[in-house]
Amino acid sequence: MKIKDTTKLVSRLRDVMNAATYTDQPLKAIIIPSSDAHQSEYLVECDLRRSFISGFTGSAGTAVVTQSEAALWTDGRYFLQAEQQLDSNWTLMKMGIPETPSIEDWLCTVLPASSCVGVNPLLYSSSSWNKMKNALEKEGHKLLETKQDLVDEVWTNRPSYPCSDLIIVDQSTAGSTCLEKITNIQQMMKDKEVKWTVVTALDEIAWLFNLRASDIQYNPVFLAYAVVGCDSVHLFINQSRITPEISSHLTKSVTIHNYDDVIPFLMDNCASEKTWLSSNSSEAIVSSIYSKYRHMSSNSPISMIKCFKNESEINGMIKANNQDAVALCRFFHWMEQEVPKGQVTECSAAQKSLEFRQQEQGFVSLSFQTISSSGSTGSIIHYSPNPESDRVVDVNEVYLCDSGGQYRTGTTDTTRTVHFGQPSKYVKECFTRVLKGHIGLASVVFPAGTKGYWLDTLARMHLWKVGLDYRHGTGHGVGSFLNVHEGPIGMYIANSVRVVSVAADVELKAGLVITDEPGYYEDGKFGIRIENALLCKSAETPYQFDGKQFFKFESLALVPIQAKMIELSLLSTEELTWLNDYHKKCRDVIGSQLQKSGHNDVYDWLIEQTKPM
Amino acid sequence: MKIKDTTKLVSRLRDVMNAATYTDQPLKAIIIPSSDAHQSEYLVECDLRRSFISGFTGSAGTAVVTQSEAALWTDGRYFLQAEQQLDSNWTLMKMGIPETPSIEDWLCTVLPASSCVGVNPLLYSSSSWNKMKNALEKEGHKLLETKQDLVDEVWTNRPSYPCSDLIIVDQSTAGSTCLEKITNIQQMMKDKEVKWTVVTALDEIAWLFNLRASDIQYNPVFLAYAVVGCDSVHLFINQSRITPEISSHLTKSVTIHNYDDVIPFLMDNCASEKTWLSSNSSEAIVSSIYSKYRHMSSNSPISMIKCFKNESEINGMIKANNQDAVALCRFFHWMEQEVPKGQVTECSAAQKSLEFRQQEQGFVSLSFQTISSSGSTGSIIHYSPNPESDRVVDVNEVYLCDSGGQYRTGTTDTTRTVHFGQPSKYVKECFTRVLKGHIGLASVVFPAGTKGYWLDTLARMHLWKVGLDYRHGTGHGVGSFLNVHEGPIGMYIANSVRVVSVAADVELKAGLVITDEPGYYEDGKFGIRIENALLCKSAETPYQFDGKQFFKFESLALVPIQAKMIELSLLSTEELTWLNDYHKKCRDVIGSQLQKSGHNDVYDWLIEQTKPM
Repeated sequence: MKIKDTTKLVSRLRDVMNAATYTDQPLKAIIIPSSDAHQSEYLVECDLRRSFISGFTGSAGTAVVTQSEAALWTDGRYFLQAEQQLDSNWTLMKMGIPETPSIEDWLCTVLPASSCVGVNPLLYSSSSWNKMKNALEKEGHKLLETKQDLVDEVWTNRPSYPCSDLIIVDQSTAGSTCLEKITNIQQMMKDKEVKWTVVTALDEIAWLFNLRASDIQYNPVFLAYAVVGCDSVHLFINQSRITPEISSHLTKSVTIHNYDDVIPFLMDNCASEKTWLSSNSSEAIVSSIYSKYRHMSSNSPISMIKCFKNESEINGMIKANNQDAVALCRFFHWMEQEVPKGQVTECSAAQKSLEFRQQEQGFVSLSFQTISSSGSTGSIIHYSPNPESDRVVDVNEVYLCDSGGQYRTGTTDTTRTVHFGQPSKYVKECFTRVLKGHIGLASVVFPAGTKGYWLDTLARMHLWKVGLDYRHGTGHGVGSFLNVHEGPIGMYIANSVRVVSVAADVELKAGLVITDEPGYYEDGKFGIRIENALLCKSAETPYQFDGKQFFKFESLALVPIQAKMIELSLLSTEELTWLNDYHKKCRDVIGSQLQKSGHNDVYDWLIEQTKPM
Repeated sequence: MKIKDTTKLVSRLRDVMNAATYTDQPLKAIIIPSSDAHQSEYLVECDLRRSFISGFTGSAGTAVVTQSEAALWTDGRYFLQAEQQLDSNWTLMKMGIPETPSIEDWLCTVLPASSCVGVNPLLYSSSSWNKMKNALEKEGHKLLETKQDLVDEVWTNRPSYPCSDLIIVDQSTAGSTCLEKITNIQQMMKDKEVKWTVVTALDEIAWLFNLRASDIQYNPVFLAYAVVGCDSVHLFINQSRITPEISSHLTKSVTIHNYDDVIPFLMDNCASEKTWLSSNSSEAIVSSIYSKYRHMSSNSPISMIKCFKNESEINGMIKANNQDAVALCRFFHWMEQEVPKGQVTECSAAQKSLEFRQQEQGFVSLSFQTISSSGSTGSIIHYSPNPESDRVVDVNEVYLCDSGGQYRTGTTDTTRTVHFGQPSKYVKECFTRVLKGHIGLASVVFPAGTKGYWLDTLARMHLWKVGLDYRHGTGHGVGSFLNVHEGPIGMYIANSVRVVSVAADVELKAGLVITDEPGYYEDGKFGIRIENALLCKSAETPYQFDGKQFFKFESLALVPIQAKMIELSLLSTEELTWLNDYHKKCRDVIGSQLQKSGHNDVYDWLIEQTKPM
């Protein structure tokens, strides 16, 4: 890996800090987080400030530069990468290790008395701000908002913000007009006696206005803010993007403002009225409302509506998943023919799966970077192949492909683990126990009031039986032609890498789409995951205790599960029935699409793959 | 039901409130909670103050008397009973109904300006005190501690506190001496830099000193407080109970004080030193320590040690469960012979089960009031038969018996549901789904770090499948010749009657004993429950993911599960194997005890009941 020489950059940043151009007083330290102004999962290039200043390109980390020190905090996933990428200007701070100080403790140790510390308030959540401010003030220091981002000042040739074309989601796909959505939210606001709602998450804005774009890779969103009032709606966006067509789509009820005018707008109009804010909004947004008027909630009103898909969105998700299954069947059929020739690599396989998807009508982009891994690289949970690490897909190894697409009607996320030779007995046992967990979750029936994490054990218990487990969550929400990781629904418990968060505390209901993705990863050996997106539906049960509504899941992804990976003797009768029913559905639904499009060889392959066991 | 005329009592109480004998100022209102000074589940008669003043005898409720009004708050379980028992002096306040005000809101409505409200601080938890105090002060009122309990002033012929003989638990049963336990706690205190620990829960005091008694029905405890210092231990108890034998058991390291001297002791010795307090301790206890020196925790240090049984305690629990199984096998064998004759009633059956237990060596008392119910009464979850409701056990109805004993070596809690005629197809389906849940939990293997509520779904999922559920928790901890409901371990999730509490957030580990008791109750028809106490043990798994420790359960109760209640076609092969293995163990262990004691007819019955299916 190439190491970036940051000597000059850090030195120039210190000059800017000292010059006090964007603060009232010179700064003795600056905090540079890894975020954009919208709490996005993926960042646009010009927002990769922490990466630019430190040279460390991992997705998580915080850089802190003082007049004499520069340090970078990151977590266990990135220790190795950070060690390789940071030059001698930087000290690596390994988070999660007892002797590593917190940023605030470290600052209090290294700063001279009565220092000023700066941070861009647009990139720092309100809760982080308060925590840091209190810690610094306790030791006699001050936390200051910078009026501009100081890294931008030393970033010559910083790319500009993307400004991709806005796409209108037609009514037959959205199922609900922008006006209907707004009325809905205004009703929720009325119930809470709230005058304004500030929307900062980009997928929520895209959903609200039935618009999409491609500002950010994988997430079909655009840079904007929205503010919903009791009788007005305001969209803050680069105004050049509002073509006559978009303007007529939005109708006169939406007032368009410049992207940068959101803070002044909030200060002028909302500061002294009860305003609904998401608790992970930035300090810049939150502090523009007087504290007594803030109505903070961890789940925004939009996120609570958006996660339950309407009928049109559900049909769109089904369509997208069927198209994706066609592409994946063609891909795995191709792999079975090509892998034995020894020329397919992890990268070329990923590329091929993209090509098959691109042949599907309405395909827009991948929904996340494809995980295509053979054998040992498969044991790295979030591995994505790159030219440096690329290796041939070996017929004697387990191959894992976790991938998904953005289609005009929906978003997909599917994982299959296969073997092109003969899997060992042990691999088959691991795979079958993962499969039992997948089936356990996919076939559960549960009452209204159930939360995602109550079901997590169903996906793990068969691995636990023999002393195995996995270090990741079991499921996440999926957007509708939106972010592939969509809150606030989730399925995971505290001993996995992710912890029980308020987000996971939401009740499961009909209309939500959630992934079912147990796995098993053996360090340095192989990775196994079986993932389908599931749709939550009402269940017709023979009895109704207490008049309760019950729910069940329907698998949206229809891609065969490789028979040779299964140790049949480990499956119960019910599990085998589930599997055969599932394969029948794959054959019926995807088979007919393959026939229609003339992919007869793939059709034959599918028939073979879905033979009753 | 007889209605108590409370006119004179309430009038005299108002005089006492007005006289200001035990407060600085006359009281405009008094709050009378349903608790003792030790957060006990069962109260001694002289502590039933709310019951005495109001005439309402249910276990939960709070009475409030002002100079012109008297009101009683209770929850849905008791609405009917309260309506029947309260006379015209009282207004029933139905908790959980939207239009019912909270006690504090009601007080603020009915009280004249600047009123004083009194409460006995020994009976009111510190958290309730703070909540009430803040609410009253906001409206210009005051909350005052009464120096004596005002109800006691109007209670002529109030029974005195019981003073039963103290029993020494011998070392072979306790497994750990009082000194070892104290040293252990002092080490925990050292780790937290705490100087004192105040122990208010009676079962914790009994455990700490390896003493038992029978002050309270079902719970073999005695009235006392304990205070553990860094190098001293103090027991506050009626000193007449300390016989020479007890004195020598306690050794010189324990200083004995009068029961009533605990508050002065705390004020004189601990008020200004860091002191560990349980967060449900009374306001009287908590306020005797200056707030900055309080180290509050929801789980006391003793509760966190006590719930994990040592080897001697485990052996004692096994012995007690085996003795209990002998008594229960004799009981169900007797029932099969007697019920068809049509003379056995719910009460006489309960009495008979007690008699069989009393014939076991070391039996002390029941561990809770026996639930013995036939048909429709079985659908009342916490029903206990009484002469008024008593009915004949019908051969055509489901019979449920939930009971347990206190033995010198351990505590038991077992439920079996049986039919003496032919159960319907529907009853069999319900029973079998409850059984599948019971087996699911009994046979799970889980990693270190798992909390009780993660496993709750395993006990419910088979009922959910057909739209059924139950409104109670799945399991509770069991004491070792101590309280049958022992915290802080529990297994329940938020949609049951009990909610996820911090108590349930404790990690499961080897040595704990927890009940596995799914059920199904159909209003007005029948009740089903299958309950065994389970012992948590280390599991030897073929693999060890991440080097993790895995755990499993062993059933302690060994009483056959009635075959005719089971719809065999609903059981999986694994479930059937579990059941046959379980029955083999019942036969081997309990059968040999029955043979030894010459109960040959019961032995033959057991052989028949445990035939492989």
